[in-house]
Amino acid sequence: MLISELAERSGTPTATIKYYVREGLLPAGERVGGNRTLYDESHERRLRLIRAMLEVGKLSIASVKTVLSALDEPDAPLVHTFDVAQQALSRSAVPDVAEPTPEALARVDALAARAGWSDCDDNIGRDIAAQVLDAFANAGFPLPDDYLDRYAVAARTQAEADLGAVAGLPDASRMTELMVVGTVLGDTLSLGLRRMAQAVVSNERRTS
Amino acid sequence: MLISELAERSGTPTATIKYYVREGLLPAGERVGGNRTLYDESHERRLRLIRAMLEVGKLSIASVKTVLSALDEPDAPLVHTFDVAQQALSRSAVPDVAEPTPEALARVDALAARAGWSDCDDNIGRDIAAQVLDAFANAGFPLPDDYLDRYAVAARTQAEADLGAVAGLPDASRMTELMVVGTVLGDTLSLGLRRMAQAVVSNERRTS
Repeated sequence: MLISELAERSGTPTATIKYYVREGLLPAGERVGGNRTLYDESHERRLRLIRAMLEVGKLSIASVKTVLSALDEPDAPLVHTFDVAQQALSRSAVPDVAEPTPEALARVDALAARAGWSDCDDNIGRDIAAQVLDAFANAGFPLPDDYLDRYAVAARTQAEADLGAVAGLPDASRMTELMVVGTVLGDTLSLGLRRMAQAVVSNERRTS
Repeated sequence: MLISELAERSGTPTATIKYYVREGLLPAGERVGGNRTLYDESHERRLRLIRAMLEVGKLSIASVKTVLSALDEPDAPLVHTFDVAQQALSRSAVPDVAEPTPEALARVDALAARAGWSDCDDNIGRDIAAQVLDAFANAGFPLPDDYLDRYAVAARTQAEADLGAVAGLPDASRMTELMVVGTVLGDTLSLGLRRMAQAVVSNERRTS
């Protein structure tokens, strides 16, 4: 298809498409005679992924590039790509707060042990969760273990759904795309449903 | 205590404390003889809340003011304060995306019906969740109902923990503070633990 059709189908202005190509986010189209350049469905899908990362994930152009490079590495195991995407997406999603205290990290490790979680010692989520424990304590609300354990149950429920959705896809490229899109969008889905559930539970308790 | 002690105890520079007082976020201290002004623990606690909203919640000064006004209304029911806090916090947490489509809103309503949720029709979470459904579909990954239902289960688990923690507090003012702090920080806790759980489940599936 011509760039004009790609622009229309993806809802992205042609100037923006050209900018992504210049920045190396989108592969160049195929030049055919004169100044006609043809794009195909792989460009359309890649464009959607870029926009999801920029607009929904609020990633910088540089971070989008990092994730796409990982996605395009021919022999990278899926777990590696997932890790790169998680790191990029998490850094942009998490406000800058102080380094976690050793006490908070120890509490997160204890939580993981109680939940029977292994292989998450070097996951970025460990630092994030520990920072949150510190922030709750600084705000005068130290969190009890019981609260954390319930959140761990919820997190596992979400992760099972996430990995189940990924496993249902036909090839590695689509799987990685869903990991990226799902990591970004899943956080927001979780946030939205948590608000609704808070209203529901709050109302149940008020009227019961 | 003097402003210097308040600054030290709260880790907030005196110039910043004076700025918050000028902006109406923090009640002025009590003037006693000369130019000495005394602050007490209510100032210290309020300062922590302001900083949590600004630094962790990334709220604007104007939004912080709105939430604090709701908190300070003498006869407001707790549910009202919670609602104001949710609105302010959610608007800042959620990237600007297009209005949800009617189809996505209908899917969120169907999800709520399946989960037995009521009283969440005008909750901001409904719009947020619907926007996410649209974004997933636009990225080429329409979400199945089963995935949504699992996220709804996780959200309810979180909300039960949230409301349980709030109910354990001694008075309405502390309850509202935790609602605010917990709404902001709980999103990030959820995000961190979800990352960890994804690594755990991903590894379990790879090795099983």
